[in-house]
Amino acid sequence: MALVSMPKSLNQIIIKPKLKHTGEPLEVKSTVSTTDGPKPAATIAEERSRTNFDIDEMHKFLEGSPEKAEQVLKLYKSLERDPILSTNFEHFDYTKEQERELVAQRIDRMSRYLETEPAAKFNRRLQIMTVVDPSMGVRIAVNLGLFLNCIRGNGTDAQYEYWSKYKESGIIKQMYGCFGMTELGHGSNVAGCETTATFDEETDTFVIDTPTISATKWWIGGAAHSATHTVCYARLIVKGKDYGVKTFVVPLRDANHNLNPGIAIGDIGAKMGRQGIDNGWIQFTDVVIPRFFMLQRWCIVARDGTVTLPPLEQLSYISLLEGRVNMATDSYRIGARYTTIALRYAVGRRQFKAKQSDALETKLLDYNLHQRRLLPYLALTYAAALGTYRLELQHESVLSEMEKGLKENNKQLINQAIVNTKSLFVDSGSMKSSLTWLAADLINEARQSCGGHGYSAYNGFGKTYNDWVVQCTWEGDNNVLAMSAGKTIIKNVQQVLKGKTIQTPTLDFLNDAKQLLAVKNVLKSEQDIEDVSKVRLAVQAVIIKFSASLLELLKANKNKWDLISPQRVQLSKLRCHYYLLETFEDRLKTISPCSELYAQLSNVLKLYYVSQILIPFTAEFIRLNVLSSDLIEYVNTTLATNLCLAIRPYVIGLTDSFKQPDNITFSLIGKYDGNIYENYLEKVKVLNPPRNFKAPYSAALEAMLNRKSLDERNRFEKSGEAAAALSK
Amino acid sequence: MALVSMPKSLNQIIIKPKLKHTGEPLEVKSTVSTTDGPKPAATIAEERSRTNFDIDEMHKFLEGSPEKAEQVLKLYKSLERDPILSTNFEHFDYTKEQERELVAQRIDRMSRYLETEPAAKFNRRLQIMTVVDPSMGVRIAVNLGLFLNCIRGNGTDAQYEYWSKYKESGIIKQMYGCFGMTELGHGSNVAGCETTATFDEETDTFVIDTPTISATKWWIGGAAHSATHTVCYARLIVKGKDYGVKTFVVPLRDANHNLNPGIAIGDIGAKMGRQGIDNGWIQFTDVVIPRFFMLQRWCIVARDGTVTLPPLEQLSYISLLEGRVNMATDSYRIGARYTTIALRYAVGRRQFKAKQSDALETKLLDYNLHQRRLLPYLALTYAAALGTYRLELQHESVLSEMEKGLKENNKQLINQAIVNTKSLFVDSGSMKSSLTWLAADLINEARQSCGGHGYSAYNGFGKTYNDWVVQCTWEGDNNVLAMSAGKTIIKNVQQVLKGKTIQTPTLDFLNDAKQLLAVKNVLKSEQDIEDVSKVRLAVQAVIIKFSASLLELLKANKNKWDLISPQRVQLSKLRCHYYLLETFEDRLKTISPCSELYAQLSNVLKLYYVSQILIPFTAEFIRLNVLSSDLIEYVNTTLATNLCLAIRPYVIGLTDSFKQPDNITFSLIGKYDGNIYENYLEKVKVLNPPRNFKAPYSAALEAMLNRKSLDERNRFEKSGEAAAALSK
Repeated sequence: MALVSMPKSLNQIIIKPKLKHTGEPLEVKSTVSTTDGPKPAATIAEERSRTNFDIDEMHKFLEGSPEKAEQVLKLYKSLERDPILSTNFEHFDYTKEQERELVAQRIDRMSRYLETEPAAKFNRRLQIMTVVDPSMGVRIAVNLGLFLNCIRGNGTDAQYEYWSKYKESGIIKQMYGCFGMTELGHGSNVAGCETTATFDEETDTFVIDTPTISATKWWIGGAAHSATHTVCYARLIVKGKDYGVKTFVVPLRDANHNLNPGIAIGDIGAKMGRQGIDNGWIQFTDVVIPRFFMLQRWCIVARDGTVTLPPLEQLSYISLLEGRVNMATDSYRIGARYTTIALRYAVGRRQFKAKQSDALETKLLDYNLHQRRLLPYLALTYAAALGTYRLELQHESVLSEMEKGLKENNKQLINQAIVNTKSLFVDSGSMKSSLTWLAADLINEARQSCGGHGYSAYNGFGKTYNDWVVQCTWEGDNNVLAMSAGKTIIKNVQQVLKGKTIQTPTLDFLNDAKQLLAVKNVLKSEQDIEDVSKVRLAVQAVIIKFSASLLELLKANKNKWDLISPQRVQLSKLRCHYYLLETFEDRLKTISPCSELYAQLSNVLKLYYVSQILIPFTAEFIRLNVLSSDLIEYVNTTLATNLCLAIRPYVIGLTDSFKQPDNITFSLIGKYDGNIYENYLEKVKVLNPPRNFKAPYSAALEAMLNRKSLDERNRFEKSGEAAAALSK
Repeated sequence: MALVSMPKSLNQIIIKPKLKHTGEPLEVKSTVSTTDGPKPAATIAEERSRTNFDIDEMHKFLEGSPEKAEQVLKLYKSLERDPILSTNFEHFDYTKEQERELVAQRIDRMSRYLETEPAAKFNRRLQIMTVVDPSMGVRIAVNLGLFLNCIRGNGTDAQYEYWSKYKESGIIKQMYGCFGMTELGHGSNVAGCETTATFDEETDTFVIDTPTISATKWWIGGAAHSATHTVCYARLIVKGKDYGVKTFVVPLRDANHNLNPGIAIGDIGAKMGRQGIDNGWIQFTDVVIPRFFMLQRWCIVARDGTVTLPPLEQLSYISLLEGRVNMATDSYRIGARYTTIALRYAVGRRQFKAKQSDALETKLLDYNLHQRRLLPYLALTYAAALGTYRLELQHESVLSEMEKGLKENNKQLINQAIVNTKSLFVDSGSMKSSLTWLAADLINEARQSCGGHGYSAYNGFGKTYNDWVVQCTWEGDNNVLAMSAGKTIIKNVQQVLKGKTIQTPTLDFLNDAKQLLAVKNVLKSEQDIEDVSKVRLAVQAVIIKFSASLLELLKANKNKWDLISPQRVQLSKLRCHYYLLETFEDRLKTISPCSELYAQLSNVLKLYYVSQILIPFTAEFIRLNVLSSDLIEYVNTTLATNLCLAIRPYVIGLTDSFKQPDNITFSLIGKYDGNIYENYLEKVKVLNPPRNFKAPYSAALEAMLNRKSLDERNRFEKSGEAAAALSK
């Protein structure tokens, strides 16, 4: 096995797998104890020494390439050292105001890297910082992603050049853009926006106006404090005719950061999470902008008010894909963070003795239920690592194909890019929705698995969960995305059944629809379930048969797509899993089957599909005759248990392989050294000095406890004596 | 139908179902609009007018009795008017420090009601206040519930009398008790506590000591700021012998609220939620207490160190039941709050047009998926209302039986009470765990169903979710409780199969084990599923057959209970549903089958068992041959859809029937008047005045945007000119 090689500053991640564990590990003794307590650090060190595979190799496998793996490590090092970007446990005590200020400082700091490092490296930096400061991640992504992507997708090259380069918003300088799409009364249905942009032929301008409360732009990240400009989604009105929703660059603040006239902006205030984002609302009252502030790649309003709508307008939505692809990847990195924390704790923490005579309590992770709660999420995170990197590459490839086609005006290439874009809408929609939901479940289960300590702010779960869950709602509500992905799958199956062939590489698995409709019990023996290609075939068959059964239902119900919406969501989830499973299967083939790495990954893959596909979707597999119902109990009990047991000894190595340093896992009970209790108590004392044992409000409490008797406080008016006097 | 009669102050709850809706409803016009926006208030008013049943009657049905229903309404009125206890949207912006101060003020206020109103009324008041201020609820419950119940359960009558009455902790006066059970390294396993209480025969005292870090009392609610005393769980050591964990009253602070010597206390700091609770840690260093501070109902240490351990010690755990019963009821009230908010929004909010030609967008709740997401939770909340009140009554009955038995020293009665207590452990354990989990899911799904607005702090979801989820962990971790309940069920089935008969009324449904083991396809037709008694039989059969199959597994696996832990949890969930289903079926029989109320409740009941039992547990029903697999699609698609459609028109009436006033639903988008957008924008502007359009940290942002060019900041050191000079 190769020797590990890694930046020195990350030395807590370096393990020496071949080094034999010798005797008692070194323990920090910083406090006085009169008896021996539990020794979680020693336990974790011992489990770490069991690692029988090369975690460097595993890390490269997870990140997808040695180059990417190295870049990620270098960025971990850079972020750990940066005085502004590094994490600090006191942040968990920050108020909304403090968090926003910190985020602003970090944006400033990030903008300096943005000016000086290659775009790909900066994007990876942003992705990694997003694991620990998602508010910062979004505040930057709103400008660089949503705002500038909208201009790139909807504006001409010259318009993009002007705003991004000449006005420097591409390096967060001079101007700061926000994304003025959502309205108070209108979310997912962009076409329902009420804001108007009315062309005034006389002055060659547009008048932007918010006609009513429900048209107020709402939730706009960056609007409350940061943004100087917005891309405003508004109905184009020319000569009294409504051309639907187009996009306009509208300046909000002047160079002194004062609000322009006609602009009303407010902070939407406190939220469940992402307190660091200055989400705001915007109302426009007859705000005048020059005609050329309209983004006119696809739709052009001429000087005389003639409106041209070219045929490729659908391409304008391509800019929405980036956010979805990124959120899928976020799910992998956040999954890595929380499985690492929860599994370290599960190894270090002991609870209940198996036998009264045992010296030590049992480790949490030696309980079957604890394994069944956490290991499926570890397996999912492995699958997500591989699948989301494939999605990233797929996205890059579609973008460059499209760019090339447009640059060369190559219609064939453009058409191919459009077909691939449609596939990417399904892939990214089903991946974003399924994985952000699963990541929310993962964080929640990981938190519960740490008992009360999972509820402490300093272990990270609460803040991350609160910051995370909005990913299920924004940039395409998960249910809306999933319904849409499900519909496309059903329609594709319909096409295949009619004899057509699907050309896109990520949906061509539906081309087997005719053959697979007839198959029964793809999985009919215990051996079948050990065979990943059979299981993939089974998932493929379920997706196809499910779609076909829904086509029947549609026919019987006058084509009412709404009636099968819950099923469309299920289908989208299955499609996400098919994508992950296919990727995992393919990637595993690149590893030597004799290696320890292969053995580990093979178990992880099996646990992934058993726990995340076969068990949760049992009803579909049975109903559609793809899994024999005799196997339900075997899959759910024996097989799931055995796979967990196979992975169990290596969890420390398997989570170390994510290589997230303490600066990123950012959790007192999840640190690399495993010294759970000392790390935790020590920091809690620093953050909440015990010297302050009386609260600022103590006087009120003390007054309550020392209050006089009820009779005395009633001036003895209700006493017998009073009654005697009053009754005379 | 009877005319509604209700306290006037709650007039937003009064609806006049028989009043025909005439034309355009009155609309508040407090802002200028130049076009017509959506009119959610009008929509909700229209839907409210569809209500075809008496919501007063429904409310009484839900609360269980007319007297209880009236008491609840009176308490709503009292709390709405109380200057300290009423809710205020600015609370959603409170910092941890502000929240703690508010909670302290409210405890003071509540203590005045405690002094003057009957215990039952005060407990109901506390239960209702807990819906909007769970931190306050717990801070009081720690003293009155955990601390005093522990003294009542473990102390002698005289000891209870002394601390509760003479020292007035029963009215939160003079002293404030906390519950010193959990340790940093020891949660659910109380027997694993490391704190010691060593008897010193010479001075007739106990010495309380925290020997090591992991023995630090942790998570102790009230310890950080409030508590003057704790009941400390510590190992009784007499003459070097360890008698296991017993309970001791230990004073923490003196009458001036200063820490006693030997006591170290700290604040555990920020948490995911419940910031209003002053959870703390405690370390005892050789703290001396008089011998009689030990609670000695069951275990007595005599002057000479003789230890007596009477046989009924198990009864000391009875005091833990109250918290679990209350948490089950909390699940009902929190479910009522969030289904009310989410369903009002789902009716008022419109999104996407069905046809381009439609004047209005479609209401969210007219989408099949939206119905399928929310209506199952409405049905669950109805079931939980009935089931948790039954559990409350069952708990009261066991307590009074036990009290009577002990008072009369009636061994038969005591034995009967012990048997019933064991049942109650199963019932409350499975109800607490299942319902707190389901309530967490409910709040989450309700939030997601409100899109972005669900994420705003001012709509209540985030804070409630964060406050709520610790219910899944504390006072019996849900998984531990569920495993234990599952185990008891399996053991009971084993007993029945061996020929014994179960005597307790809530577990005697297992007595049919022998007959039901043989049944097949209890549900084999669409008609069967419409028949609640058949469905109940099916659930009964599933529980029994499941248990029997697990007994087989145990036999095959050397009786390793650990191996079937996930299944024990499933079994516990099914047991909770059986309890709810049985209660609902019984209660429905008390309603005239010709009434509109019956028709509504009958649909709600069916949707409850279809969506919460048959669908989620399909795999078990199929595997155990209780449901015919031909029916899976019918149940999941046709039936679930039709039941949702049947309930859909009445959701406003069905949620109004909970009668929670705006002061309790406490959500800008969930108000009774349905004027979603105006209520929301108006309050957001009050709480975050738009006048402050520059953030306190604006200077930093502006400096970033107005920074000089990179070359200039680099003093042109990297310019060509510099290169030329440097290369000479």
